[in-house]
Amino acid sequence: MSKLTDVPKRILIGRALRSDRLGETLLPKRIALPVFASDPLSSVAYAPGEVLLVLSIAGVSAYHFSPWIAVAVVVLMFTVVASYRQNVHAYPSGGGDYEVANTNLGPKAGLTVASALLVDYVLTVAVSISSGVENLGSAIPFFVEHKVLCAVGIIVLLTLMNLRGVKESGKLFAIPTYVFVVGVFVMIGWGAFRGLVLDETMRAPTAGFEIKAEHQGLAGFALVFLMLRAFSSGCAALTGVEAISNGVPAFRKPKSKNAATTLAAMGLLAVTMFCGIIGLAMATKVRMAENPAHDLLRNGVPIGDGYVQNPVISQVAAAVFGDGTFFFVLLAAATALVLFLAANTAYNGFPLLGSILAQDRYLPRQLHTRGDRLAFSNGIVLLAGAAGLLVWIYGADSTRLIQLYIVGVFVSFTLSQTGMVRHWNRHLRTEKDQAKRRHMIRSRAINTFGAFFTGLVLVVVLVTKFTHGAWVALVGMVIFYATMTAIRKHYDRVADEIAAPEGPSDDVVRPSRVHSVVLISKIHRPTLRALAYAKLLRSHTLEALSVNVDPAETKALQEEWSRRGIDVPLKVLDSPYREITRPIIEYVKGLRKESPRDAVSVIIPEYVVGHWYEHILHNQSALRLKGRLLFTPGVMVTSVPYQLESSEVARKRARKRQDWNAPGAVRRGPAERPKETRAPSAKS
Amino acid sequence: MSKLTDVPKRILIGRALRSDRLGETLLPKRIALPVFASDPLSSVAYAPGEVLLVLSIAGVSAYHFSPWIAVAVVVLMFTVVASYRQNVHAYPSGGGDYEVANTNLGPKAGLTVASALLVDYVLTVAVSISSGVENLGSAIPFFVEHKVLCAVGIIVLLTLMNLRGVKESGKLFAIPTYVFVVGVFVMIGWGAFRGLVLDETMRAPTAGFEIKAEHQGLAGFALVFLMLRAFSSGCAALTGVEAISNGVPAFRKPKSKNAATTLAAMGLLAVTMFCGIIGLAMATKVRMAENPAHDLLRNGVPIGDGYVQNPVISQVAAAVFGDGTFFFVLLAAATALVLFLAANTAYNGFPLLGSILAQDRYLPRQLHTRGDRLAFSNGIVLLAGAAGLLVWIYGADSTRLIQLYIVGVFVSFTLSQTGMVRHWNRHLRTEKDQAKRRHMIRSRAINTFGAFFTGLVLVVVLVTKFTHGAWVALVGMVIFYATMTAIRKHYDRVADEIAAPEGPSDDVVRPSRVHSVVLISKIHRPTLRALAYAKLLRSHTLEALSVNVDPAETKALQEEWSRRGIDVPLKVLDSPYREITRPIIEYVKGLRKESPRDAVSVIIPEYVVGHWYEHILHNQSALRLKGRLLFTPGVMVTSVPYQLESSEVARKRARKRQDWNAPGAVRRGPAERPKETRAPSAKS
Repeated sequence: MSKLTDVPKRILIGRALRSDRLGETLLPKRIALPVFASDPLSSVAYAPGEVLLVLSIAGVSAYHFSPWIAVAVVVLMFTVVASYRQNVHAYPSGGGDYEVANTNLGPKAGLTVASALLVDYVLTVAVSISSGVENLGSAIPFFVEHKVLCAVGIIVLLTLMNLRGVKESGKLFAIPTYVFVVGVFVMIGWGAFRGLVLDETMRAPTAGFEIKAEHQGLAGFALVFLMLRAFSSGCAALTGVEAISNGVPAFRKPKSKNAATTLAAMGLLAVTMFCGIIGLAMATKVRMAENPAHDLLRNGVPIGDGYVQNPVISQVAAAVFGDGTFFFVLLAAATALVLFLAANTAYNGFPLLGSILAQDRYLPRQLHTRGDRLAFSNGIVLLAGAAGLLVWIYGADSTRLIQLYIVGVFVSFTLSQTGMVRHWNRHLRTEKDQAKRRHMIRSRAINTFGAFFTGLVLVVVLVTKFTHGAWVALVGMVIFYATMTAIRKHYDRVADEIAAPEGPSDDVVRPSRVHSVVLISKIHRPTLRALAYAKLLRSHTLEALSVNVDPAETKALQEEWSRRGIDVPLKVLDSPYREITRPIIEYVKGLRKESPRDAVSVIIPEYVVGHWYEHILHNQSALRLKGRLLFTPGVMVTSVPYQLESSEVARKRARKRQDWNAPGAVRRGPAERPKETRAPSAKS
Repeated sequence: MSKLTDVPKRILIGRALRSDRLGETLLPKRIALPVFASDPLSSVAYAPGEVLLVLSIAGVSAYHFSPWIAVAVVVLMFTVVASYRQNVHAYPSGGGDYEVANTNLGPKAGLTVASALLVDYVLTVAVSISSGVENLGSAIPFFVEHKVLCAVGIIVLLTLMNLRGVKESGKLFAIPTYVFVVGVFVMIGWGAFRGLVLDETMRAPTAGFEIKAEHQGLAGFALVFLMLRAFSSGCAALTGVEAISNGVPAFRKPKSKNAATTLAAMGLLAVTMFCGIIGLAMATKVRMAENPAHDLLRNGVPIGDGYVQNPVISQVAAAVFGDGTFFFVLLAAATALVLFLAANTAYNGFPLLGSILAQDRYLPRQLHTRGDRLAFSNGIVLLAGAAGLLVWIYGADSTRLIQLYIVGVFVSFTLSQTGMVRHWNRHLRTEKDQAKRRHMIRSRAINTFGAFFTGLVLVVVLVTKFTHGAWVALVGMVIFYATMTAIRKHYDRVADEIAAPEGPSDDVVRPSRVHSVVLISKIHRPTLRALAYAKLLRSHTLEALSVNVDPAETKALQEEWSRRGIDVPLKVLDSPYREITRPIIEYVKGLRKESPRDAVSVIIPEYVVGHWYEHILHNQSALRLKGRLLFTPGVMVTSVPYQLESSEVARKRARKRQDWNAPGAVRRGPAERPKETRAPSAKS
């Protein structure tokens, strides 16, 4: 049955849905890489720029620290990749950070990780789309001129696509990602060739600018702090690395091994691109400032408000390929596309994590059911709304949004790696095989280092970014955490309340007899059907019940009743105020009072119609009555539907809607077929 | 159970509701008069001004026609009152114009009257409130300075009051109405005394202005047309006269006689006040113009945009009592209050008419049930929304809004009187008693004249006002008419479809056996209760059904099932995609296919919770499943509710909500106690 609230949705999202199913196709490594790596690889589009930006505070001389920061990021990347390779082997079910933390460190740690990841999904959308718009804008200025509008427009577009359930195909991810990767490598290679072999001088568009240092001659602690801040911003390159650990089931066999290999390949690609871009930026003398209008000087004069600071990757491309050339535009387009794909991964990850959390009763239960369109839709709309709000508040400025980013990622990195250490400790307590033990000890060492290093980075990120925006992310995490705790508490309380007592339980709740009441307003097919069904149920007593709101109609009903010789007694309730609900409720309560151990079965004939506007013309009193009856103890309420011709429309629509694929199906891999229970289910 | 959409409503409208009941108190004439007459009496606050305004088009010299127009209005008023006195005697049930037209002229005429009345209720709100704000503004300029804001604010206030279900008491109506009536009479008397006995010269604030005639020296047809237009505007004094004919049941016995007397008193008061105000306006030289900024001249110069043209009644009061004196302010306040009360009568009349139309299946059926809060609320919100829109579009300018008014009233006057003529004709055909026949012939003569005169006025109103705004009212009527016809058509089609065949009908729809299925997710009190109830129902076969979405949970369920020794077979359905609805629907369809003559009873355990936010945490799959099952033929769906502790809150709230009184209860009189059916209902 369709609801009123469906209508605007349906107009925007459309009714047509694919009926073919995914889920049975497993991903080869060459497809898995782009599917899972669009997020971490795309971050090289903004991470190098952020490093230079922060360093510029101490003036252009500080730029020579950037290779050291790149090295730190590379070390961190290798650490994280190495750590997650252990996760992938230990948890081939694709549990991810939440499962690892939950299992090994307890539910509070798990919930902390979950909150952090939910916040980071929101930020992935906000940052990736803002950065994508900035990259597009380096080729087509229109986009930067209407930054917020374009960013929000793309969020809306992605949201509609995901609500509609776009078919996810590996190719969709593969083509732009490979174009982007190849493009960046060609750029690095061609740049190196031109610079080192041809010995040409390549100059970025900003090469002629000077930077007015906000803090000239920074030294000692202040300089270290600044470098740590630059490093924190560079860590943006690490986001999304954990995605593969959630997606192990989607890989071809041997799943864990293939996933680990893909992870390593992804790490290698990411650091090469990151370092290559930083190197080219240094070589082409890219100049970036936190506050370009004031701190970038052209011929000694501040450049002013009209200046748009393009991303490092596009400045480098302009230097290497030439501004506005085919390769420049192609790379800008591929970069933007990969960033939008990265945002799209959050659209898949957010409801997927929601479904796992729902399984553990931290979120409404219905989120758990796969393919529950409504539940996924709510998750998607929540994600889009939060991301849209951030984009709007922060003016779609990726630099300001990145201040909020990364905190969440490192919370989950740290807790996940700490959990892995516990995991190995537990297994080492029971494992006897020396070869396996050696392997475990090695893994534990890697995870310990990972936990230590990511924990250190988390502290650095918190300290250097707290006032710049990380507090916003923390507030978001606290809100998610508190909400999920409250939901879990509610479910636990209900579970306690309804827990079945041990022992033969029937006597606790079992009534002795059933008194059936069929509600009658007129004699027509639906009521006759309800009467026929009621008779079949062979309850201990059966009567028909009508409420007298119009004496003439009631009289006609009584006459027709006896004329037709219906063999069920008809009782008429007076209703001086023309109410329907109250007299019935009071009558049912009266029956219960007379014989408290009996149950009352109220049987309501209902029409089933096809359109929402028909729905508001029917069954409203029945609906309200059912709502009230449910609060009356000892009652069961039976609807006997009568399908009107128009209901066929709605039945077909409902069937179509069921054949909908939730977004994220490719990344999640095929559904597990529950083999253990197939045998018992064959015979009941 | 509360719904999500209730929450904003509840915040605005509040939860507390009176539990005492009205409806048993009948109105004495002295209270009935103000209850029913606030609408027609209040119209003397604007009708005289409208007459002068239209006449001013031909210059101030045309003002000397105003007594003639007053005479015409008086004759019309007496005609209408005399006609409706016949209605009141002939239809003591309080049927009103809709019933009269429907019974005597057929459903199309009835529906036309209903559409006209619905439109006029909207306009009553818009005009009365705009005029009330203008009258308030003559004492406190703030109100005219923020006219639209104030008018919309008062609409919102009235709407909230009516949604909350304010206790209607006769006193509430009586005090301001009598203050207003006495105030106007004191003003007329004191004005006459000062003018005629003391021979003082009273001058209205606008007495010194000249009027620049838009059409100087109008003569012949043009002059007649203008006078007819002025008369049409004066007819605004007639609106609301028909209200008493709807409210006969609210009077003390002898109901019809008392109602007729009250009607006559009301007519007399209205014409006296109308003529008195016109007379005083002439004596104090009130000057009004359609376009005061350009057409009112002070010392030969147009008065300009800053000028606010106060209503005639306040200008006269300023002349008689003195501007700003206590009596002046008191009268302005009483006038405004009576106008707001007049608007409030539409809030009662609109849903009341809706309920009568619902009885005839022109509107959704649930509107018929008295005290159906939700239905009344929808009607009230629709009325307020339409009136608010008009106020906003027309800048809360009563003069412009009055152009739309009156058309509807005269449509219903004319059709109602025509219907009465038919009524008497029909009765005369069978009536033999000569005394009664003479009486009927007299009544028929009155109604015939009424029909002819009001029909003529309708034509005049249509012709003179069509382009000025009457077309908007006609469009509104067409929309109501078309909607109600479509709804009736739908109900008729459904009624045909579900009509019970004659003869022993059981064989048409009667299934032979019932196969019961209890849905189980876990073993807890709600499912145990559902199982116990299902067993009591003694259906032909009974099984428990569970969907395997998580193999571990399913295994645990099966183990507990056998451990507890539950004597119902448990069947487990596979669900590779973790769906719940689809496997169950397919299983049920399979059962039906195996034995098409059997019915399937699906029994669903449900939790009942108290808060809407709890509600979204539970039963969502059950709800969706029930929705789908209703489309499956041969199925009945039984909810076995389990009331959680928190449900107590909601139960109490629902009970409170039921003790709500629909607005309009005083005017409608007590509910009829259906006496005929009391005997049969005592024994079933």
